[in-house]
Amino acid sequence: MTHESVLENSVTKHIYFFGHNQADGRADMKALLGGKGANLAEMNWLKIPVPPGFTITTEVCTYYQKERSYPPGLEQELLENLARVEKIMGAKFGDTENPLLLSVRSGARASMPGMMDTVLNLGLNDRTAQGLIKRSGNARFVYDSYRRFVAMYGDVVMGLKPESKDEEDPFEILMERRKKARGITYDVELTVDDLKALVADFKAAIRERKGQPFPEDPMEQLWGAVGAVFGSWQNPRAEAYRRLNRIPDDWGTAVNVQAMVFGNLGDNCATGVAFTRDPATGERVFYGEFLVNAQGEDVVAGIRTPQQTTLAGARQWAQSRGMPEEERKRSFPSLEEVMPEPFRQLVGIAETLEKHYRDMMDIEFTIQDGKLWMLQCRVGKRTGPAAIRMAVEMVEEKLITKEQALLRVEPDALNQLLRPVFDSAAKKKASPLAQGLNAGPGAATGRIVFNAPDAEAWAAKGEHVILVRTETSPEDIRGMDAAEGILTARGGMTSHAALVARQMGKVCVAGCGTLEIDYAKRHMQVKGRTLREGDWISLDGTSGEIFEGQIPTRPSEVLQVLLDKTLKPQEAPVYQRFAKLLGWADEVRRLRVRTNADQPDQCEKAIAFGAEGIGLCRTEHMFFEGDRIDAVREMIMAETAEGRRKTLAKILPYQKEDFVGIFRVMAGRPVTIRTLDPPLHEFLPHDAKTQAALAAKIGKTPEEVKARVESLAEANPMLGHRGCRLGIVYPEITEMQARAIFEAALQVESEGTPVHPEVMIPLVGYVRELEEQARIVRRVADEVMKKAGKKIAFLVGTMIELPRAALTADEIARVAEFFSFGTNDLTQTTLGLSRDDSGSFLPTYLREKIVSYDPFQSIDASGVGQLVQIGTEKGRKTKPNLKVGICGEHGGDPLSVGFFHKVGLDYVSCSPFRVPIARLAAAQAVLRER
Amino acid sequence: MTHESVLENSVTKHIYFFGHNQADGRADMKALLGGKGANLAEMNWLKIPVPPGFTITTEVCTYYQKERSYPPGLEQELLENLARVEKIMGAKFGDTENPLLLSVRSGARASMPGMMDTVLNLGLNDRTAQGLIKRSGNARFVYDSYRRFVAMYGDVVMGLKPESKDEEDPFEILMERRKKARGITYDVELTVDDLKALVADFKAAIRERKGQPFPEDPMEQLWGAVGAVFGSWQNPRAEAYRRLNRIPDDWGTAVNVQAMVFGNLGDNCATGVAFTRDPATGERVFYGEFLVNAQGEDVVAGIRTPQQTTLAGARQWAQSRGMPEEERKRSFPSLEEVMPEPFRQLVGIAETLEKHYRDMMDIEFTIQDGKLWMLQCRVGKRTGPAAIRMAVEMVEEKLITKEQALLRVEPDALNQLLRPVFDSAAKKKASPLAQGLNAGPGAATGRIVFNAPDAEAWAAKGEHVILVRTETSPEDIRGMDAAEGILTARGGMTSHAALVARQMGKVCVAGCGTLEIDYAKRHMQVKGRTLREGDWISLDGTSGEIFEGQIPTRPSEVLQVLLDKTLKPQEAPVYQRFAKLLGWADEVRRLRVRTNADQPDQCEKAIAFGAEGIGLCRTEHMFFEGDRIDAVREMIMAETAEGRRKTLAKILPYQKEDFVGIFRVMAGRPVTIRTLDPPLHEFLPHDAKTQAALAAKIGKTPEEVKARVESLAEANPMLGHRGCRLGIVYPEITEMQARAIFEAALQVESEGTPVHPEVMIPLVGYVRELEEQARIVRRVADEVMKKAGKKIAFLVGTMIELPRAALTADEIARVAEFFSFGTNDLTQTTLGLSRDDSGSFLPTYLREKIVSYDPFQSIDASGVGQLVQIGTEKGRKTKPNLKVGICGEHGGDPLSVGFFHKVGLDYVSCSPFRVPIARLAAAQAVLRER
Repeated sequence: MTHESVLENSVTKHIYFFGHNQADGRADMKALLGGKGANLAEMNWLKIPVPPGFTITTEVCTYYQKERSYPPGLEQELLENLARVEKIMGAKFGDTENPLLLSVRSGARASMPGMMDTVLNLGLNDRTAQGLIKRSGNARFVYDSYRRFVAMYGDVVMGLKPESKDEEDPFEILMERRKKARGITYDVELTVDDLKALVADFKAAIRERKGQPFPEDPMEQLWGAVGAVFGSWQNPRAEAYRRLNRIPDDWGTAVNVQAMVFGNLGDNCATGVAFTRDPATGERVFYGEFLVNAQGEDVVAGIRTPQQTTLAGARQWAQSRGMPEEERKRSFPSLEEVMPEPFRQLVGIAETLEKHYRDMMDIEFTIQDGKLWMLQCRVGKRTGPAAIRMAVEMVEEKLITKEQALLRVEPDALNQLLRPVFDSAAKKKASPLAQGLNAGPGAATGRIVFNAPDAEAWAAKGEHVILVRTETSPEDIRGMDAAEGILTARGGMTSHAALVARQMGKVCVAGCGTLEIDYAKRHMQVKGRTLREGDWISLDGTSGEIFEGQIPTRPSEVLQVLLDKTLKPQEAPVYQRFAKLLGWADEVRRLRVRTNADQPDQCEKAIAFGAEGIGLCRTEHMFFEGDRIDAVREMIMAETAEGRRKTLAKILPYQKEDFVGIFRVMAGRPVTIRTLDPPLHEFLPHDAKTQAALAAKIGKTPEEVKARVESLAEANPMLGHRGCRLGIVYPEITEMQARAIFEAALQVESEGTPVHPEVMIPLVGYVRELEEQARIVRRVADEVMKKAGKKIAFLVGTMIELPRAALTADEIARVAEFFSFGTNDLTQTTLGLSRDDSGSFLPTYLREKIVSYDPFQSIDASGVGQLVQIGTEKGRKTKPNLKVGICGEHGGDPLSVGFFHKVGLDYVSCSPFRVPIARLAAAQAVLRER
Repeated sequence: MTHESVLENSVTKHIYFFGHNQADGRADMKALLGGKGANLAEMNWLKIPVPPGFTITTEVCTYYQKERSYPPGLEQELLENLARVEKIMGAKFGDTENPLLLSVRSGARASMPGMMDTVLNLGLNDRTAQGLIKRSGNARFVYDSYRRFVAMYGDVVMGLKPESKDEEDPFEILMERRKKARGITYDVELTVDDLKALVADFKAAIRERKGQPFPEDPMEQLWGAVGAVFGSWQNPRAEAYRRLNRIPDDWGTAVNVQAMVFGNLGDNCATGVAFTRDPATGERVFYGEFLVNAQGEDVVAGIRTPQQTTLAGARQWAQSRGMPEEERKRSFPSLEEVMPEPFRQLVGIAETLEKHYRDMMDIEFTIQDGKLWMLQCRVGKRTGPAAIRMAVEMVEEKLITKEQALLRVEPDALNQLLRPVFDSAAKKKASPLAQGLNAGPGAATGRIVFNAPDAEAWAAKGEHVILVRTETSPEDIRGMDAAEGILTARGGMTSHAALVARQMGKVCVAGCGTLEIDYAKRHMQVKGRTLREGDWISLDGTSGEIFEGQIPTRPSEVLQVLLDKTLKPQEAPVYQRFAKLLGWADEVRRLRVRTNADQPDQCEKAIAFGAEGIGLCRTEHMFFEGDRIDAVREMIMAETAEGRRKTLAKILPYQKEDFVGIFRVMAGRPVTIRTLDPPLHEFLPHDAKTQAALAAKIGKTPEEVKARVESLAEANPMLGHRGCRLGIVYPEITEMQARAIFEAALQVESEGTPVHPEVMIPLVGYVRELEEQARIVRRVADEVMKKAGKKIAFLVGTMIELPRAALTADEIARVAEFFSFGTNDLTQTTLGLSRDDSGSFLPTYLREKIVSYDPFQSIDASGVGQLVQIGTEKGRKTKPNLKVGICGEHGGDPLSVGFFHKVGLDYVSCSPFRVPIARLAAAQAVLRER
């Protein structure tokens, strides 16, 4: 078989072999073999040393989930592949003289780190252990491996692993008990006899708890482990992870069965994880961590603090923690120092892999008796800034194209470059509490919580929290998502906390060893100080520093260049990469990007971020400023159109001034101004005191004010007297707003600045509504322009935010000069779902997978999106060149932007800070289409 | 030209002539000639004596509305047609010797009685008047006609008619002033000189008010009148009428110009209105009213109490008012007695017309010097009962087919046969206050109001009102619509009040001469008693009696047969016709008709009315009965699923009992039961006292109860935690309801009664919601049936009441076994319109014609209806035989039923009392399709 011919394999093949620089599979077969299996195969083709093994396909997983049994023929296939492994390794599975041990690992199409189960050292029993002792001459290693295996098997296959973190693992309890009895602290202090006794203890615990013995038969062990890995696809952690990462349930996982190699055979053994570039910063340096005499899981689990692979990295690491070089050399030497030959080989493999995959790779390796084995390689996770840096630099290195670079960066990652950093003056004054690893860049301030459920609960109440854990585990994901930042006492840059935080774009300081956390007392101690739940701390995820209290933040480098102009572009490499990438995005994208802004300063920001116009200027926000609200309230209290007109005249100069400011900043870019939208009761005071004050101001009795407030109260304000319904009943309001817009536009134009106002009528359901409101707007525009003796071009359009508007868009387009989908309200009406009230059941819906994501965050493509599509098609049937945009929150959501591109909208509009995200997402949409 | 060839006329023809038993037009050209013009033409073809004239088409009206000018060539055409009239009449328009006078009347495609303007006696000026005096030898007649003409012209053409009823007509003021000055009471007492002076006064008033003189030139008068009639199409009364009757604005009106004939030339002259059958009861008798020596408008305006045409009718009329035969003969002789020859001729013409038109005709006639002229004929308006009687009897007479009969009855008319009548015992005890004409059948009780705006305002507050007026006019329409009944002091069976009330199906007693109304004092006096605004009165519209106070009502004849069984069908002719018509409807209709009912007695009623199943059984109504609400509240207060299950167990027996009762009554007809729908806060008490009582009952503190009530409060309950969202979060509720349904079904089946339960899940937006709820229902069904050792068939389906559900109906149909459109909620969400809150702007929307009708009353076909269509099509794409129904309020609205038929639904479901309406509407939908 060749690398090219692997696809000719029969479709009924269930197991794919790899080993000896040959494989049945390939890197592009991830759907069938999972990421791990496909890359193990590929590494064989690249002649990289990989322990031989085989991959049971994801199709078997899907079959197993459905049928609760294996497809016919699988057993025979497994035996044949096992024989091939045995042949290469020169050992036999279950053999008492020269036993082959196996690892059994999950491997899904998408990486789901730590989510599913793994069993190592499989094949050990009392008899094979004796054989292995004979062959290795290392009883301690064998019993250590044996006790690990029995515990893992008990946890994973026989289900003794506690569901919640409140319970302790039964095997850990036994471990601790024995260490206590022996008066020792560390695992390594356990003797061979201790380990042997532990194996017996563990087996007894299994029999006691499960009523059945630990299986001594290696073949039974193997099938048990395979079934457990397939079963782990459905465990709650894995399901939660898939939900969060939108991985379909029917993908399934593959199972990789591989000959064991051992990093724990002695001091010329090691195991480690490395990245071909720095995953935190993106810098082009080889970066890795390892542990001598350890098994792979030890590194990721963060139980011991790992050493650095390169000498330079190790020195820097020690420096940042103030560790003397002597101590470093003694306790934390680099791999480069302790095993120079495997190190050189590792660096070479890293180069091969990066060139081959054209991406930064995350690799796992084990050194057994000085021989390097690669256990896994995959595209490495990275922080947002790192992703941007790598993408841009790889283009410069001609490793990838601009288009590939654009697809390499999650649009949301751009947000990390805009995140505030600590104000350096304030930070200097603050005394650092401790130093950890800079695992997730950015600055975060929040109140301490010590477990994930608390993080979720506090955040739901609007608190900013920092989740502090000894170490994190997959159970903590939702809590990590809710926190501003994550701080752990143990684990390295490749620990669970670091990996997940980077992926989420969270600030994270990991492995801060000076931290002592007492979950029960809900406090932590560090250098003699005690911080309790609820106390404020600040994390600098870029430097790894931890501070007590709140530290004021200041704008990021990008913001200093773009907004504050305190930094010149040429002094700001991060900004340069940011700008370069977005420049490429702008060359590619078809969708225009506007912003939702209603104040000149917001407009300035948005323009700096690349906004090409305003897609939504809400006029009502201006109503609350200063004492304008008094005039607004007086207007609402007026009993006649005449009375309203009189008070509206007071509001007019304010509105005009607002628009003047905006038109000046926008300098000729289109400005879409929405006429008054919220129900009038939102402007009135609801407490007796303010009502009395208002009454006094406008010469009414408090009872009259109260009566008006009550008369305006609504059962369902969302579906009530708002939007254009206000302008229909009170046309004088629309008149005043139109007057303000056109007077402002004429004034700014007379200053020499071009203006492009677009007046947008909200909540239209019937074309007649738009007709009426457009008539008023055009009449006022005529009047104002006639008076000024000058004409400016403008548009009158409408929001499409009711299902009826989308369904009758062909009629509405007869009058509308543009459409803008208001997907917030369209979501509320299409789903019959009040955003304010959904909190009582949406969490259940997400948990029970009734919905796969919050429809207010990403557009519900099949429902709300269908209406967007219908509305766009019908609108353009009437007016082929109708300009169509969207100005709901979804305008800044990458997934939604992709949808809007596909539907063929002209622009999206989002909040200023999400403009870069929308630009990149829009470019990706084009590239994904190709 | 022949009757058959008229359609060959060129399309550019603007004027259609008629006269001398020939015409350019025909009865089926109503769209072009208006109803009046088309029928005037047709009567010529039938050789019925009609004063010659011509019709200016509705197309000219449309042209005139748009261009504010007439189409080219119109003037020439008019002159040619005028010449033909002059030739037939042997008189000349504007001639000073032998002047021809003209009437100018509007005539739209649909009858709009009294809505538009009319000018009579046109052509008079000081010189033609002299000519006419010479030829007629009747100066009084000429000056009476002249003063009428000047006043009409001033009012209609020159716009002096006051807009509101608060102002008085300037010509009436002058009239009254002159009568006062002369010390006389009645118009007839005015002398020739008085009338002559009035003409001068009137002209002076015109010049003074309008700054221009009354036009003496007859041609100028003619064009002025034509323009005024065209203009009257846009007057507010006409617009209001069209809105109420859903007549398109672009139909326009025609103008009929016709030679004047005079009913006011002396005592051998008369004018009258007649019906070929009794319009109130439908009985096959010639029925009419007339006035001697009067002009046509006098009869309709109700100013004088008219006489009866037939002797039998006159005797009956007198008898019912206790008038001695002597007095009747003297003051109110019949036409049969005073002008026997024209009467015979009139009866003959009536027969000819009814046979020709195959319908009851409403005719206007004038007798000039003993010669009968027909001024108009049209299909006559009738009460609901009369419509049914005529339709059924005309089939029996073989005048029309069953299908025609079905189309003759407005479905809503059936409702009039179900309306309560007064309890006869209570009515006997009540002393009749007075007697009027039985102008609109039925019994009504309400509080007195004296003007239309009050009627509207009081009704809006939920009051039952009786509108009492001296006479009504088109301005009163909305007030009449709001009132339970209408009582007038003047006018006959053909007065405005009587006509409109019949059309609206309102109870009406007209022409109660003993009533003295004082609008200013807001009271009325009758036989020495004074009744004030707000006092209760009762009207028997079937007998014409008026009673003081409230009289209890009892069921109508139909209800006595169907529900009370106190009357045998053979003793109930009204019931027999009702049943016969609905029997025919059942033969024709394709849509099934179900009912919305949740109690056994409602189900019984619905079955009696022909319901074929239950389309919506709301389970929550049962929750409020007796002390069940305590258990429900305890359930809501429970903190855990376990706690809820415990209290739900208390509710289970109640629910089961309810369903047992319903299944028994429905006896094998399908019963669609909806699971819990309203938000839980609807069940909790909101006042402190009841909260405290509840707290005591369930062992909680009042604060806990209050806190729970507050935690359940929602910003937009309509879009909140309700419908299946309850069952998803609290699956134990669905479980309990399913258990109650299936236990009840099994019990009733074991009694020998078949059962067909259909479980309906409300507010589904995502197919996963339905999946989850259906899974629970089916699991419980399995359990219950296994336990009982018996199986029954059942369905699980869903309501489609959210736009998303309709848009993704193809997915939902994978799970649903039936759909039922909940058009109430679908209207709220599709239009973003809260039914509870729309009162603040929907009236403006109707007034401003933003919407042409209330979308909660008749389905919004282009928006909500589009979703019904999409949902049905998509649902059936997945499941071709999917049963699809509708169970919103629209299920009983004829217009909506027609729409649902067209879309292809299987059934509609409505409240029990609307079942007959839906049956007829469903049949009409089939017939209209043919």
